[in-house]
Amino acid sequence: MSASKPVFDPPFRERLAELMRWRRDVRRFRRDPVPEDLLESLLDLAQIAPSVGNSQPWRFIRVQSAEKREEIRANFRQCNAEALATQADERKALYARLKLEGLEAAPVQFAVFCDHETEQGHGLGKRTMPETLDYSVVGMIAGFWLAARAAGLGLGWLSILDPSAVGGALGAPDSFKFIAYLCLGWPQEEHIDPELVRCGWQDRAAAGRRVIVV
Amino acid sequence: MSASKPVFDPPFRERLAELMRWRRDVRRFRRDPVPEDLLESLLDLAQIAPSVGNSQPWRFIRVQSAEKREEIRANFRQCNAEALATQADERKALYARLKLEGLEAAPVQFAVFCDHETEQGHGLGKRTMPETLDYSVVGMIAGFWLAARAAGLGLGWLSILDPSAVGGALGAPDSFKFIAYLCLGWPQEEHIDPELVRCGWQDRAAAGRRVIVV
Repeated sequence: MSASKPVFDPPFRERLAELMRWRRDVRRFRRDPVPEDLLESLLDLAQIAPSVGNSQPWRFIRVQSAEKREEIRANFRQCNAEALATQADERKALYARLKLEGLEAAPVQFAVFCDHETEQGHGLGKRTMPETLDYSVVGMIAGFWLAARAAGLGLGWLSILDPSAVGGALGAPDSFKFIAYLCLGWPQEEHIDPELVRCGWQDRAAAGRRVIVV
Repeated sequence: MSASKPVFDPPFRERLAELMRWRRDVRRFRRDPVPEDLLESLLDLAQIAPSVGNSQPWRFIRVQSAEKREEIRANFRQCNAEALATQADERKALYARLKLEGLEAAPVQFAVFCDHETEQGHGLGKRTMPETLDYSVVGMIAGFWLAARAAGLGLGWLSILDPSAVGGALGAPDSFKFIAYLCLGWPQEEHIDPELVRCGWQDRAAAGRRVIVV
């Protein structure tokens, strides 16, 4: 027990709720740079996230060069064309109108991986559920997202990519599993509702809200 | 663009960082109940999390009955004994001393699943990376964790369980993939450092902090 343990009062909790409501997946970025010290402080904060066995398996490749960025964009274009083709006929036109990434403008771009060969954590907690190593990386990203939004930044998580192609293009070791491609920057617009709701793709649904009790 | 878009000022951001630093995986709970209206508000807040295609695939089974709780504990005991047996000889004694769950006292317990048959989201974003459906549930849990901690609650994520046995014991549909077992309640102790660091299991490591730039 620490004498200095914090109490989070109702005004803070209301602001936290507001932050969570205004967190959004952003795909429309201004091109202004993100200060490096801000970025570093956000990465430091994100990495105090929980991880299975305290394994801290997240690994970052920052994609800066125009050449590498173009490889990622080309991969997105191909995967997105294939995804469009698999959509039901009545949804194809809507799908084609969606803006699903911010690769052309986001000043900061990260590919985030999970190191499947890390010995950190000594295997604790992942014998029956090895996927918890990947989940640890996802949880870290969730915290990064909120901290970035609190700093006024927008983050977009891109998954319309071929994971093995991304790893290959960026020279990731074979032991790195690709988890997410993150675009980060100052948002052009801010919204409290998700773009996929605004565009008529998928409303908020009630299914998850039903709690079964046993 | 909304006229009422929020600005998160430096004092709020410092408090958010404090919240992230004091979030912990809690395994020592008081038995006092958690008010149902607080629990409901936390679940509502958590479910504004991002999800692939806005699919909102999280499903909750709340484990209340003594019989079901004992089934989960029995499963943990078996999985943990097997995990202990796989530890290196020089770490077995330390492993055996760790308190890895709070099943005996946590007043609120949830098994959280991902619905692999949901049609919400219409498949958007998960064709090349179907695992992003599971990741969406993980991100939701990360937000729930922070919101719970801000309310003074502790949360413990238990993964030392056989996923199929948990689903079976709780009567989950076959389409529900088990993601996490969450114990929630008022913590007996509060710490800024992880229990696994305090007990000498795994320190903070620097590997994740190195960012490769390409």
